[in-house]
Amino acid sequence: MNTYDQHTAQPLLINLLDWEFNSNGIEKKFMFKNFNQALGFIVQIGILAEKVNHHPELFNVYNKVNIRLFTHDANGVTDKDFNMAKEIEKLLEQ
Amino acid sequence: MNTYDQHTAQPLLINLLDWEFNSNGIEKKFMFKNFNQALGFIVQIGILAEKVNHHPELFNVYNKVNIRLFTHDANGVTDKDFNMAKEIEKLLEQ
Repeated sequence: MNTYDQHTAQPLLINLLDWEFNSNGIEKKFMFKNFNQALGFIVQIGILAEKVNHHPELFNVYNKVNIRLFTHDANGVTDKDFNMAKEIEKLLEQ
Repeated sequence: MNTYDQHTAQPLLINLLDWEFNSNGIEKKFMFKNFNQALGFIVQIGILAEKVNHHPELFNVYNKVNIRLFTHDANGVTDKDFNMAKEIEKLLEQ
């Protein structure tokens, strides 16, 4: 699997609002109205993660959810991470 | 609300398996068989957190769930945190 670095990731990040390359992963901080909304989002991401067998790092406190994507097998950021970021964004469009 | 420090927290931590006082919060690292189990635990904690209006910091990657409890209003560890830790432990007994 090809991996991306801070430079090669840029053209793909342009299409992903507020996602950033950081410490060899791609990350985004989400903020919701309340904890209920945040928990709903976490569960949706969880179901998605199981479906594609690719699991993000996830941090939550109250209405905040931080997601970090990284491909363990490739020890870096791959297309799997960009595809998952796109799917996560789609969850919020619904 | 009274707050606990590393020293005064010890008598209460004795009754809580593997919980530790760290950086002015109490923390535990949980490990499950798989992501599904971890997500189930996260959702159970979420429902509990809403019920008592006390929300932990939560970190998850695959089968690992790290929980950190801290009382924002008191800027420290309070009985609310110890009570919640007990309730979280009860979730795993069921």
